[in-house]
Amino acid sequence: MSTKVLDIGQAVLQKNQGLADSLRAEFRAKGVFVLNVVSSPGSGKTELLAKTLDVIASEVPTGVIVGDLATDRDAARLEGRGAGVLQVNTDGYCHLEANMVREAVDRLGIEGLRLLIIENVGNLVCPSTHDLGEEMRVVLLSVTEGEDKPLKYPGIFKSSHLALVTKTDIGEAVGWDRETALANIRAVAPQIEILEVSARKGEGMDAWIGFLRKALAGHGPS
Amino acid sequence: MSTKVLDIGQAVLQKNQGLADSLRAEFRAKGVFVLNVVSSPGSGKTELLAKTLDVIASEVPTGVIVGDLATDRDAARLEGRGAGVLQVNTDGYCHLEANMVREAVDRLGIEGLRLLIIENVGNLVCPSTHDLGEEMRVVLLSVTEGEDKPLKYPGIFKSSHLALVTKTDIGEAVGWDRETALANIRAVAPQIEILEVSARKGEGMDAWIGFLRKALAGHGPS
Repeated sequence: MSTKVLDIGQAVLQKNQGLADSLRAEFRAKGVFVLNVVSSPGSGKTELLAKTLDVIASEVPTGVIVGDLATDRDAARLEGRGAGVLQVNTDGYCHLEANMVREAVDRLGIEGLRLLIIENVGNLVCPSTHDLGEEMRVVLLSVTEGEDKPLKYPGIFKSSHLALVTKTDIGEAVGWDRETALANIRAVAPQIEILEVSARKGEGMDAWIGFLRKALAGHGPS
Repeated sequence: MSTKVLDIGQAVLQKNQGLADSLRAEFRAKGVFVLNVVSSPGSGKTELLAKTLDVIASEVPTGVIVGDLATDRDAARLEGRGAGVLQVNTDGYCHLEANMVREAVDRLGIEGLRLLIIENVGNLVCPSTHDLGEEMRVVLLSVTEGEDKPLKYPGIFKSSHLALVTKTDIGEAVGWDRETALANIRAVAPQIEILEVSARKGEGMDAWIGFLRKALAGHGPS
């Protein structure tokens, strides 16, 4: 007797996809460029975004939606950097869904924004299948997480436009095998661009900000 | 300006809770004892359940619902052990929800069952907030995962009735600090019972099976 299998997630995901598509159409119509930033917990999303806001929020009107299981610690770290910040508590949901972004966008207000950054909940699984209507997905991989992560979580790399290797300043201390890691990223996600940064030390931040400026310049109201 | 916070998961979770409560009422009315088995990926859920079925499925009519992101490898390992097995592919959802169990139960059929084991998707976050209508939640913690896991993921331990420390046969090899681990479990979840097993070597399996028999004996149709 063969194993009986029930595919059950598709209907739920299709509903999310429909809502994400309509969000994307709205973002484009309003000229808001939307980033969905995903990674494991502790990969340095908030530190990267704090340093990014310090530069970019004075150049273009920027909003941030921060998803978290609970607490507003991440949002508090992003306050006072020139961007409107809304913390979304998912109450135990390990990822954001398009309906949550819909509600958050209505609450935050995106009229006049040029850039909206969504910091997803720390998780390498569910965010990969949940489109939030973003224009670009950025996956962070810190040097402390191990070179095999792209092979173990291919979905999130396959679905991202850019991989940001973070915490490069401690790569040597933790024995980060850079060549293997980059090869693994490229093996699962040939389409992806790769940048390497240390938000703390500033290494590579110019390239990342330049990447962001270029993306913004190429994205006007539709 | 204080951080704006939007609590968004509650409505979704309340809907799940309502459905879980009705499932539980149905399970009780039919005299089916339902276990929800949760853990990180690789904690040994499937190995434990395979060895458990080898004993218990010949004693009481047993069904198994196996949640997985994709593939039917886990279900295949549980076949041929005397229980009806249904694989549920969540297509990237990192946890089971009550509506998925509802559909799986209808597909598997639970008439005449005395025991239904739900093997949740490997994840220590989302399953903690998603009641599936179970009578008892069992969290596995393998000795390879580190003693600090209960402190980092308190929700799943707080919401479980039993913690099963697994893979005890390799505890010494991986430097498992048993006293610290048990103290951490008890610190976050004073209510929890703790058993230690090696499904591979059979250590502690009698106590676990005895625990299960006792739970089944105390649970008749309501």
